[in-house]
Amino acid sequence: MATAVDPALIENLVVANRVLVNEGVLDAFGHVSVRHPKNPRRYLLSRNLAPALVTTRDIVEYDLDSNPIEAPAAFTHFHERFIHGEIYRARPDVHAVVHSHSPNVIPFGVTEHPLRALYHMSSFLTAGVPVFEIRKSAGISNMLVSNNALGKSLAETLGESNVALMRGHGNVIVAKTVQMAVFRAVYTEVNARLQLQTASLGGPINFLANEEGAKAMQVLDNIHVRAWDIWKRTALAQMKS
Amino acid sequence: MATAVDPALIENLVVANRVLVNEGVLDAFGHVSVRHPKNPRRYLLSRNLAPALVTTRDIVEYDLDSNPIEAPAAFTHFHERFIHGEIYRARPDVHAVVHSHSPNVIPFGVTEHPLRALYHMSSFLTAGVPVFEIRKSAGISNMLVSNNALGKSLAETLGESNVALMRGHGNVIVAKTVQMAVFRAVYTEVNARLQLQTASLGGPINFLANEEGAKAMQVLDNIHVRAWDIWKRTALAQMKS
Amino acid sequence: MATAVDPALIENLVVANRVLVNEGVLDAFGHVSVRHPKNPRRYLLSRNLAPALVTTRDIVEYDLDSNPIEAPAAFTHFHERFIHGEIYRARPDVHAVVHSHSPNVIPFGVTEHPLRALYHMSSFLTAGVPVFEIRKSAGISNMLVSNNALGKSLAETLGESNVALMRGHGNVIVAKTVQMAVFRAVYTEVNARLQLQTASLGGPINFLANEEGAKAMQVLDNIHVRAWDIWKRTALAQMKS
Amino acid sequence: MATAVDPALIENLVVANRVLVNEGVLDAFGHVSVRHPKNPRRYLLSRNLAPALVTTRDIVEYDLDSNPIEAPAAFTHFHERFIHGEIYRARPDVHAVVHSHSPNVIPFGVTEHPLRALYHMSSFLTAGVPVFEIRKSAGISNMLVSNNALGKSLAETLGESNVALMRGHGNVIVAKTVQMAVFRAVYTEVNARLQLQTASLGGPINFLANEEGAKAMQVLDNIHVRAWDIWKRTALAQMKS
Repeated sequence: MATAVDPALIENLVVANRVLVNEGVLDAFGHVSVRHPKNPRRYLLSRNLAPALVTTRDIVEYDLDSNPIEAPAAFTHFHERFIHGEIYRARPDVHAVVHSHSPNVIPFGVTEHPLRALYHMSSFLTAGVPVFEIRKSAGISNMLVSNNALGKSLAETLGESNVALMRGHGNVIVAKTVQMAVFRAVYTEVNARLQLQTASLGGPINFLANEEGAKAMQVLDNIHVRAWDIWKRTALAQMKS
Repeated sequence: MATAVDPALIENLVVANRVLVNEGVLDAFGHVSVRHPKNPRRYLLSRNLAPALVTTRDIVEYDLDSNPIEAPAAFTHFHERFIHGEIYRARPDVHAVVHSHSPNVIPFGVTEHPLRALYHMSSFLTAGVPVFEIRKSAGISNMLVSNNALGKSLAETLGESNVALMRGHGNVIVAKTVQMAVFRAVYTEVNARLQLQTASLGGPINFLANEEGAKAMQVLDNIHVRAWDIWKRTALAQMKS
Repeated sequence: MATAVDPALIENLVVANRVLVNEGVLDAFGHVSVRHPKNPRRYLLSRNLAPALVTTRDIVEYDLDSNPIEAPAAFTHFHERFIHGEIYRARPDVHAVVHSHSPNVIPFGVTEHPLRALYHMSSFLTAGVPVFEIRKSAGISNMLVSNNALGKSLAETLGESNVALMRGHGNVIVAKTVQMAVFRAVYTEVNARLQLQTASLGGPINFLANEEGAKAMQVLDNIHVRAWDIWKRTALAQMKS
Repeated sequence: MATAVDPALIENLVVANRVLVNEGVLDAFGHVSVRHPKNPRRYLLSRNLAPALVTTRDIVEYDLDSNPIEAPAAFTHFHERFIHGEIYRARPDVHAVVHSHSPNVIPFGVTEHPLRALYHMSSFLTAGVPVFEIRKSAGISNMLVSNNALGKSLAETLGESNVALMRGHGNVIVAKTVQMAVFRAVYTEVNARLQLQTASLGGPINFLANEEGAKAMQVLDNIHVRAWDIWKRTALAQMKS
């Protein structure tokens, strides 16, 4: 279990799991983590569990090699926790990571159509959305990022972006806080749905300019908590009932 | 707070927030206002808050420059309240304004495909649906209509229409009453979804003729309250529970 | 109010209103009627009311000219009740009529793409789905079938079919019983959604053959009550709560 | 009724019915069965009933000719139970069968576009998804697999695959356990929806390679219970309320 961590952070991590289920980003699969606030070489992630079932007692501390620290022997661990460890290693600015199979995003990982920002709510996509082709690193595989070498390859593909797609699998989303990671995960899913619809109209699409995206992202720094607050309220009500 | 206003109007404004969330027009963002019934140079709008959380205590009175009148110091205000002030200034016939990121409408703001009326329920679209390109007024911006000059530009784009789209952002909808503004916001979203589907079939689309639209709008003047009544009933039940 | 009618029929008519709302065929608009079981020149329909609010006390008896019989003076009546009266006059085999703005069906009324049966659940569409163009009968109108002449034109377009679309408006669906009319309304909506998706794949579509449709309809005569029973159970539970 | 069967298996079969309704695979139609654990020439299936209403008391034992064994005289039986009997006869490895009208799958049965695996969650589709054309076996029919000869034809079309589509009707899904059959039914529906969206983007689609599919299926053998556990929890809560 995670020791010496502000319980409010743990609660937000648990809530993040619920919110991502409520908003259709996660189903019984996928996970969300935060970097340990006092030890940047550690991160906090649920044990292997469906996100909707995660409670504070299920949060485990891992090192950046994704070894659990003092977890109960009965706990099992996500096969793909290496995604989190290697991204935290490569990106000191990142303090929260979401891995999901966010449904509307899947098409953009298996075609030549890049996911791009349609509006200010998804302006964080203007930093670019690379696609991770696991076949380049692992050849024919079971598609899972199930060791540190593959996690490192994925982190390299992500580079300085906020979102990377994983071909035939899902995506990974990073941010400075768990609240912002959740916000980005939700609006990545929304943007993907809207982009599918827009593309179906045919003709050129007037995407957000990169410079507009950079400015709009500053707005999101302020306003994303308005969404978080109401999502959290709903999640806490569910967890009490 | 708004003084000397019929509490029934304030209640309807609060309910309008809820209805627009329930019907998928608003999420944690967007806002709805009414012109002050006794002072046409004032309008009523929630403080900066997620729409689903708005209560009567959160309604603030603003002048047409969008300065709050006697609001508690702890209140913050929507960055884009200028949308409302400038539209009320430019359009004496307008008594309610909705600003939203109504999802299905987004594609029509970023392509060359105009949003048009498919059926009588959205006949108010036959008055034309112009698209506001903020880049023409603000150059590279954070996409927000966050001052009076931009609000005025948007109002000019709106002209005499009932709906204007905002490229890469959302839309604005106006009406004589808050009930009709909500009705139009809901059926703008529905029409957008249906138009996306219709376009995917390919071939010409038999849109409502402008003259049919003008006649059908008179019908909506009568029947829109049937929708409002049931939406309000649902919203009030939620607010009590 | 309808006199001398088996209360079970009235209950089913009330339930039909609820089911059609629950299944996304009706919103605050649209209506469903049954022919009077003892007097074929009368029919039963709710007074002018949102379908989700209809109770047994709101059911009114009309003659085939759509004049109400002994209705309370406070009651108002649907502008388009003439749809029902004229279809009952033209089609002695019909004992229930649904008029809706069923959303996914709208695209097929405003394009050259006919609605056709994709699978056995909507086999009743193999009888053909004509489109009513009100402009041919009324010229530029408010789109409503608001008198007997227009109702008669619509009934003529319907002919011997089970479903007719109304351009820029909605559709009308007929059956021998209210249970079957509801079943057809639900699966017309489902078929329309599936046909939109199928068309988006491109290429030829292997629709149900007319002879397959005729045989499959006999199956539906047996099995549609299985759907009705569970829909009714849900509706009654809602009405009690 | 099924005798000498572990009640936990019966409970899972009942729960499977609920889960498939909750996840949008079944509506009032379709059915799920398990092979008798002690007698491979018998299988267990609900009597003719809407899936959401099935309880342990409704489970009937059938032989592979689909004759009921000691069922109450009042029970009626699914017209298409022969699907189950003939698949169990042809495929000794199969211990659970789902037949559904899973909506998003319908388009792939009526076009030349094969259903294929977009991501690891539906890797079981890489074994191939043949389409059963009932017209080849039955000529012009009512579309139902309503006898052993048609069930046998369907089983021949299925071959060694995990999923077969039925043109103008639905699909059939098989697995070693009822939990896996439910998992496959849910992700067949999800994959179909995602493939429709992906196809709408245009251009080539990078489907899962067959070898990737084979490896990813081994992962699903482990992780599908995580989904089952949370689906079952929800279903049991509904059944108690």
